[in-house]
Amino acid sequence: MNYQEKMLRDNALKGKTILVTGGGSGLGKAMTRYFLELGAQVCITSRNLEKLENAAQELSAATGGTCHAIACDVRHYDQVEQMIQKAIAKMGSISVLLNNAAGNFISPTERLSSNAFDTIIDIVLKGTKNCTLALGKHWIDQGEKDKTVLNIVTTYAFTGSAYVVPSATAKAGVLALTRSLAVEWAKYGIRFNGIAPGPFPTKGAWDRLLPGDLKEKFDLAKKVPLKRVGEHQELANLAAYMVSDFSAYLNGEIITIDGGEWLKGAGQFNLLEQVPDHMWDMLETMIKAKNKKS
Amino acid sequence: MNYQEKMLRDNALKGKTILVTGGGSGLGKAMTRYFLELGAQVCITSRNLEKLENAAQELSAATGGTCHAIACDVRHYDQVEQMIQKAIAKMGSISVLLNNAAGNFISPTERLSSNAFDTIIDIVLKGTKNCTLALGKHWIDQGEKDKTVLNIVTTYAFTGSAYVVPSATAKAGVLALTRSLAVEWAKYGIRFNGIAPGPFPTKGAWDRLLPGDLKEKFDLAKKVPLKRVGEHQELANLAAYMVSDFSAYLNGEIITIDGGEWLKGAGQFNLLEQVPDHMWDMLETMIKAKNKKS
Amino acid sequence: MNYQEKMLRDNALKGKTILVTGGGSGLGKAMTRYFLELGAQVCITSRNLEKLENAAQELSAATGGTCHAIACDVRHYDQVEQMIQKAIAKMGSISVLLNNAAGNFISPTERLSSNAFDTIIDIVLKGTKNCTLALGKHWIDQGEKDKTVLNIVTTYAFTGSAYVVPSATAKAGVLALTRSLAVEWAKYGIRFNGIAPGPFPTKGAWDRLLPGDLKEKFDLAKKVPLKRVGEHQELANLAAYMVSDFSAYLNGEIITIDGGEWLKGAGQFNLLEQVPDHMWDMLETMIKAKNKKS
Amino acid sequence: MNYQEKMLRDNALKGKTILVTGGGSGLGKAMTRYFLELGAQVCITSRNLEKLENAAQELSAATGGTCHAIACDVRHYDQVEQMIQKAIAKMGSISVLLNNAAGNFISPTERLSSNAFDTIIDIVLKGTKNCTLALGKHWIDQGEKDKTVLNIVTTYAFTGSAYVVPSATAKAGVLALTRSLAVEWAKYGIRFNGIAPGPFPTKGAWDRLLPGDLKEKFDLAKKVPLKRVGEHQELANLAAYMVSDFSAYLNGEIITIDGGEWLKGAGQFNLLEQVPDHMWDMLETMIKAKNKKS
Repeated sequence: MNYQEKMLRDNALKGKTILVTGGGSGLGKAMTRYFLELGAQVCITSRNLEKLENAAQELSAATGGTCHAIACDVRHYDQVEQMIQKAIAKMGSISVLLNNAAGNFISPTERLSSNAFDTIIDIVLKGTKNCTLALGKHWIDQGEKDKTVLNIVTTYAFTGSAYVVPSATAKAGVLALTRSLAVEWAKYGIRFNGIAPGPFPTKGAWDRLLPGDLKEKFDLAKKVPLKRVGEHQELANLAAYMVSDFSAYLNGEIITIDGGEWLKGAGQFNLLEQVPDHMWDMLETMIKAKNKKS
Repeated sequence: MNYQEKMLRDNALKGKTILVTGGGSGLGKAMTRYFLELGAQVCITSRNLEKLENAAQELSAATGGTCHAIACDVRHYDQVEQMIQKAIAKMGSISVLLNNAAGNFISPTERLSSNAFDTIIDIVLKGTKNCTLALGKHWIDQGEKDKTVLNIVTTYAFTGSAYVVPSATAKAGVLALTRSLAVEWAKYGIRFNGIAPGPFPTKGAWDRLLPGDLKEKFDLAKKVPLKRVGEHQELANLAAYMVSDFSAYLNGEIITIDGGEWLKGAGQFNLLEQVPDHMWDMLETMIKAKNKKS
Repeated sequence: MNYQEKMLRDNALKGKTILVTGGGSGLGKAMTRYFLELGAQVCITSRNLEKLENAAQELSAATGGTCHAIACDVRHYDQVEQMIQKAIAKMGSISVLLNNAAGNFISPTERLSSNAFDTIIDIVLKGTKNCTLALGKHWIDQGEKDKTVLNIVTTYAFTGSAYVVPSATAKAGVLALTRSLAVEWAKYGIRFNGIAPGPFPTKGAWDRLLPGDLKEKFDLAKKVPLKRVGEHQELANLAAYMVSDFSAYLNGEIITIDGGEWLKGAGQFNLLEQVPDHMWDMLETMIKAKNKKS
Repeated sequence: MNYQEKMLRDNALKGKTILVTGGGSGLGKAMTRYFLELGAQVCITSRNLEKLENAAQELSAATGGTCHAIACDVRHYDQVEQMIQKAIAKMGSISVLLNNAAGNFISPTERLSSNAFDTIIDIVLKGTKNCTLALGKHWIDQGEKDKTVLNIVTTYAFTGSAYVVPSATAKAGVLALTRSLAVEWAKYGIRFNGIAPGPFPTKGAWDRLLPGDLKEKFDLAKKVPLKRVGEHQELANLAAYMVSDFSAYLNGEIITIDGGEWLKGAGQFNLLEQVPDHMWDMLETMIKAKNKKS
């Protein structure tokens, strides 16, 4: 199979104006690229303006679409309000918000300072809250309808995870924000959904998360029932569906796309995949014999 | 917005051979229609052959695709095995199984006979199990790969629901079957996912479920944050994505498409949507006053 | 710590009349013993009358309580109805139903016959349904109140599990039955809860499940964050709480008692517990250096 | 039934030294009282020292136990560190941390300022994180074992809820923190659990949350299948179990105690409880007639 294939009909996002936080690199960039290909106008934002403008130019050139860049530290509500005003000035309106900006530390929790922990909460949870609240207030004030917010969480937002506890904590908050406002703000014509991606390696983020030879030692593909990590286009296909009108009846839903990774760890007897065939043969014989007797 | 728009690129399902249980009417028929439009060959099955053949002819004619009809009571494993052999004879192979056949009684549980309860378990849970086990054994024996099973559950498979307890019970079983085999049979190149649809009324099923003026009295659209029921094409778009290769990294995932219906009921303070604006004004004033003092 | 300590006040279950399916061995017997010690009258039931009567005598003698034995195959509704009549004849009434009877095959699913799969659904799901429906109808007809049903499920009822798929499927059905009737039958004064036990080894069941040297190879204690399996009294303490009036405001709740086993598998980065301390030191240094630069 | 009965054996918490944040009023005070009755030494903390000292004196006098009071704003990590040192100085050690301090605004989200939203995140999520991280570091540094953390969340931490979105967001973060560290810190002999209480009215908090006649208008008891709100002792019984050694095999578990409230809203057909008996009679007749024909 070729996992690079693109799903949606041409111009599926024509007329959409999309704000992507953390859109200048990694998965945010991959989703932005596909949105542009499908006819959307996109505004990407992150802290580093130079990197951001380079990405915007590259994406515009590659897709023939229009990609804008606005610097913003999403931890600061006033910066977020200004960024939104600029994005509206550039695009005329914002029809979709994709909260993708994130931060993460991989570390035993007892080694983290309180400040380090707070930083992740501030970027991930308060950042998502800031963009959502500022833009939501604008939409509601203006009486604009048919809006969509898509939040990127993680598979461990549901179950928690050791060694990435600030991220687990913050992403769980984002998950609850998604579900809460899906109900509360539906009356204003705003719907909320999320994606919980499994392992979709990106050069930057994963090198930072798992430096040195950790990446080889803890090959995440092994934990995935499908025995591979995801391709960026697979995530982009799902994200494009979720920000498009085709998903207009999805609301409050978090879609996990991880090849079954989290389930594999969760099931009590999943570890028995290590039992070889001949042992199953033997067990089968033993069990049949026992059942006959009882 | 127009909820009838179709999402996927032309020929997105070209080469797919799809078996749809309960495919002759209602949502099964709607999904089948779209699969055919996207280039798949489909075999539909249910108990009533005449109705089934009429549906197959209608769908073939309308889409220019090839739709076969094979009668089968999915409660009986031997019938299922024969049906699968016939479907393979007609289509050459089966690449996708859509377990959609279901039954339901709306009733206080204490009014149900044990037999009535069992009937739903047999159709929904054992029926899904029968088709999955028989086809899975075939795929595994033949060493065929790149297979997909899509199971239709309900939003109450997670939470349970009063008054449809046999269905809740059986669909929860299907949910666990989906997640279990997503992990276990991934090594054979078979992935499993599900859809949990909210209110997508179909003439037959909903009239039977809510006869008389119950449909008006218990207008399910009111319970949905988006204040509408779903359109069949919205479900078909999602189902087509999930059986296509575009979703190849989705595994073990159940996607809820219900406009946020289940969440609206679940949240403890969601009922406060009945508070009118002027009361919120008053409350705001009171709270601000209190906070100043404390 | 000593995990054999008993929690509840003397006579905490005085006046309770409890029906325990599968009560003659394993965990059912352990819970029954503690119920008797706390002053309850108990009726245990399973297929093998001789074993059952021996267990009842042993338990009565050991606790000074009154334990009855009635043979019943819970797969057959008429047998269940008769068993309930006999239990009421012996105890005057039934105030608590503990659905504990179960069956399980550990096997790759493709090696199971359809009949073997059905057997587990029949014992676990239909058996629980039969006891619940028959006794519930009786309670509702008689207008009896303050009743409790406690269902034993498994941690993989939520997530599914490979290699025990019939059990996962059936137990998920029981979970949904529990939650559905918790809502529906609350108006009749009947509440429903469940326990999802992790690894609580019992001589019989675990030897059958993991014969030969499998038990050593797949030491389930290793998968548990607390690095031990559970003691029967720990389960009995929880079960006694849940059938007692002290838990009268618990309804529709499934309590997992597994030392954190399922969560350990589920979290994406939990596998990093294998990283040794000196590698964390090194990583910390690297990350700090990188953060300074960025 | 009398819901004031106390469950655990005398001295069940003898030797325990418990730190309860927000322990001076409401549910925190109710749990503290029962911990003292069971032989524990407790240190309560909140911002208002005078109120706190009054509560500590009242509780000590009423129970004959030893209750200490230390002022602390849990939003500030350095205050938390000092408070913990003081608590250890008073009690010799801390064996249990009960994170109970919380804040909440009931309001349409678009009416909240960003600062108001942040305040709840800071009290609830960062406050819980601060106490957990500071005490956890201490325990791990000292090599102390057999420790327990119990976090109070809400039923809407799982599902989200409109009109209390900051609280939903923050409590979901606490939930993920609980589950993550249950796995990660088990190796240090620290276990983590949570309670998700439904409606347990307390004079202070509920009057603030639902001022004026809102409490009558939105009678939360009506939403509960059991048709009543919870009694404080019912929560105290559960909390005492969860901080005691009797629950030593519970880890990473959140127990919901809400009479089935959240499930009642969640199930798709639960609203049919409004159908009167005679309509069910009629429906039954109609359905039987239809089934005969089909």
